[in-house]
Amino acid sequence: MPPPTPIEPKAVEAITADVTAANAPSGQAAPTGFRFRCIACGDLSDSAVQNFRCSRCGDLLEITNPRWSHAQGSSAPTASGLKTTWKQRRDSLSPVDLSGVWRFRELLPTLENLHHVITLREGNTPLYELPQCSRMLGLPHLFAKHQGMNPTGSFKDTGMTVAASFARQAGFRWVACASTGNTSASMAAYAARGGLRSLVLVPEGKISWSKLSQALDYGAVTCQLRTDFDGCLRLLQELVLRAPVYQLNSINPFRLEGQKTLAIELLEQLDWQPPDHIIVPGGNLGNSSAIGKALLEMHDLDLISRLPKLSIIQAEGANALVRTLREAGGKRLVTVQAETSATAIRIGNPASWKKAIRVLQATGGACEQVSEVEIARAKAEIGAEGIGCEPASAVTLAGLRKLLKQGFVKPGESVVLVLTGHLLKDPGFTMEFHRGELLPATAENESAVSELQALRRPPIVLDATLDAVIRTLEQQEKSDIQA
Amino acid sequence: MPPPTPIEPKAVEAITADVTAANAPSGQAAPTGFRFRCIACGDLSDSAVQNFRCSRCGDLLEITNPRWSHAQGSSAPTASGLKTTWKQRRDSLSPVDLSGVWRFRELLPTLENLHHVITLREGNTPLYELPQCSRMLGLPHLFAKHQGMNPTGSFKDTGMTVAASFARQAGFRWVACASTGNTSASMAAYAARGGLRSLVLVPEGKISWSKLSQALDYGAVTCQLRTDFDGCLRLLQELVLRAPVYQLNSINPFRLEGQKTLAIELLEQLDWQPPDHIIVPGGNLGNSSAIGKALLEMHDLDLISRLPKLSIIQAEGANALVRTLREAGGKRLVTVQAETSATAIRIGNPASWKKAIRVLQATGGACEQVSEVEIARAKAEIGAEGIGCEPASAVTLAGLRKLLKQGFVKPGESVVLVLTGHLLKDPGFTMEFHRGELLPATAENESAVSELQALRRPPIVLDATLDAVIRTLEQQEKSDIQA
Repeated sequence: MPPPTPIEPKAVEAITADVTAANAPSGQAAPTGFRFRCIACGDLSDSAVQNFRCSRCGDLLEITNPRWSHAQGSSAPTASGLKTTWKQRRDSLSPVDLSGVWRFRELLPTLENLHHVITLREGNTPLYELPQCSRMLGLPHLFAKHQGMNPTGSFKDTGMTVAASFARQAGFRWVACASTGNTSASMAAYAARGGLRSLVLVPEGKISWSKLSQALDYGAVTCQLRTDFDGCLRLLQELVLRAPVYQLNSINPFRLEGQKTLAIELLEQLDWQPPDHIIVPGGNLGNSSAIGKALLEMHDLDLISRLPKLSIIQAEGANALVRTLREAGGKRLVTVQAETSATAIRIGNPASWKKAIRVLQATGGACEQVSEVEIARAKAEIGAEGIGCEPASAVTLAGLRKLLKQGFVKPGESVVLVLTGHLLKDPGFTMEFHRGELLPATAENESAVSELQALRRPPIVLDATLDAVIRTLEQQEKSDIQA
Repeated sequence: MPPPTPIEPKAVEAITADVTAANAPSGQAAPTGFRFRCIACGDLSDSAVQNFRCSRCGDLLEITNPRWSHAQGSSAPTASGLKTTWKQRRDSLSPVDLSGVWRFRELLPTLENLHHVITLREGNTPLYELPQCSRMLGLPHLFAKHQGMNPTGSFKDTGMTVAASFARQAGFRWVACASTGNTSASMAAYAARGGLRSLVLVPEGKISWSKLSQALDYGAVTCQLRTDFDGCLRLLQELVLRAPVYQLNSINPFRLEGQKTLAIELLEQLDWQPPDHIIVPGGNLGNSSAIGKALLEMHDLDLISRLPKLSIIQAEGANALVRTLREAGGKRLVTVQAETSATAIRIGNPASWKKAIRVLQATGGACEQVSEVEIARAKAEIGAEGIGCEPASAVTLAGLRKLLKQGFVKPGESVVLVLTGHLLKDPGFTMEFHRGELLPATAENESAVSELQALRRPPIVLDATLDAVIRTLEQQEKSDIQA
């Protein structure tokens, strides 16, 4: 099979006049020293078609560094050498070293020239202790890695900096994704930062304006298509095969490479002592796949001496992976009609399900689902630690509670929850929760919902007198003591 | 005058039974080695009354370190010693060193015990180049220091970590502020983090739910009082004199101490080479005061060899400082009925006006005002760099344009804009701007508003066909070339 011709990107205007199946832009070269590998048939190649699908079997690609296949080999970097290099870069003032992604560039695909890097100083996210949740769950070693502290407020930035940089290196002028939320915000920011144009495809109708506002602010062109979300995805796939537009949806394997750095940074923060468990929200499953890939690579390279168990938590209303494992033994994807208030993981047809299953198996992690009430409760409990996250992030704490009950997580073990988005990504959820508009009680969930009551803090309307305010403080103290 | 008795904080319940003017909680000791100084009468004292006002003349207090009054003195820290210490802490994994505020603790009031520190890893904010704005303005050395990248999305966090830590050290169980926005969000987060209760006083009615959602998420008790904002402020002042509630409004001088670290971190990022200009939005004027104080202290301590000019920009509709300088020669405050879409600086009666004027004079900075159209344009221009900020932050770029025209800033000079809040703090502004709902054209502003048209990117509704999308991309390229 002849390798696809690497494209010479041109302006849309120039190319669309003569687009045919034969001369459409068709490939992107693999970065030096790295190759694309199909996750299903294992086919290795030096370049990829623009839709980032295997040209043999159509499945997803991943990026692999053949040098690491035998970590003992002479060309593999040494663990202590890497740790020293990464630590030294913390003293640097150069933008590439200040990035919490590119600081770990030895484990990323290699750019020909670091001048192509598009960075907003992503990564560098805090690892918080959770003292109140620790006490509540009887789990002394509990942490939260907050990816919502990235520049656009979600974990997507760590992947976008890598994929957008490769788009720029390849000479693309347009990047595109189909997304109603965090992906489009992140893509638009990095495109703008790198002088690229960005296109967001969304279904007409149901969109979160507060999330779309970011893409607009960063100058994205937003098209509301008269179709559903799957229709947007299909059209995007066609578009990137027909026009010089770089595809930035989550099947882009460069994005997953950047998202790997969450795990590297986390381990550095833990002084390279692996936790027993890492717990991640499961939506499109790209993030769990990326974290798992990083853990396996770090283990191969002797950066860590043992693998943490990586567990994935879904919302009950968007539980495709849970059902795929329980009903189909992980052999075929069971899709669902997704419905959950945790919008960032409201996905019924997750693209990276095979990668995620591989990671669960390789690390011995679990897969669980949690209810809407459990999500709301967990989000309020994380908030009470002074940490604001979007609802999807809270599934991790809710899931941990289940895994503890099941005995999968044991009280002496150390656990890291991955929070994926900032509270400000979805202020509506918080308001509705505290106003009592979320989760109206039904016959089925009445007792569960009533447990949430103690966590609600609806604004209290008062006369502007000292007595009224002091009385409120006293009542609050009394009710907290009773609770 | 006998020093006020340091209070022994008790629960609200216990104290309110026997509150009288005589036995009300009355003072807080100054931190070791530091003293409170009245900004008007200069009175020095070792403790402060809970409303943080001078017990002689009622004006605001600031915190001063007598050791620095003669930086040549033997007990003053040396500049090179400080720089080395701060740099070394960048390799530390301890939460106090990981804080971009407490890392510079030699220039902060001293806590008796660092265990009292309440931190969310605030500070550590990026300094961005602005390549597109640089070209547009012909100003090669232009940067933005983005304080919106703090944990709760605004610069308030850097001050709150200090004030909340001192509240905890003093044994308080309640903290409070009157605020409809960034202050309450930040206060509630730090209170939660430190195991304190928080109280937010807001006027009934006009509040931004998306900003209040943060305070609710972090567990604050929110009271909507039947009064206006000034009424809330007055009641808060009474409350902190009558009950053991720690006051966290911006007149709390500990907050300004924390906010100083913006300038220290900035100078470290610039390798201690001072820029020619620092430009800050002016609302309540606490932030400009804090940055100015830091610059003066750094100059005293030989950390920098010359002072940058600190300039303050206000919205035309909230221009109290501009009018105070122009109409009253800076001698008395001219208050205004504030009205601007830049809600974070919609303040007509700025508390720290005297401190701000002192800073303008000491550094030789300017004070300017910008229109609503100029704010909207500047915000879109910053967004086009991939940097999302709230409208109030954008006054800095709009003001810079004016200061350049006036010749106050010269093309060869280096300029740092201080962005104070994250885009996600006010997604509504962005949406309204792109939908064309903001700034409807009137006879007066017609030409200015029409200039904004090229920056608008309203979502385009399309049939879900490849042709329709490709046509849109072509049109976009054409219109960008024409613009």
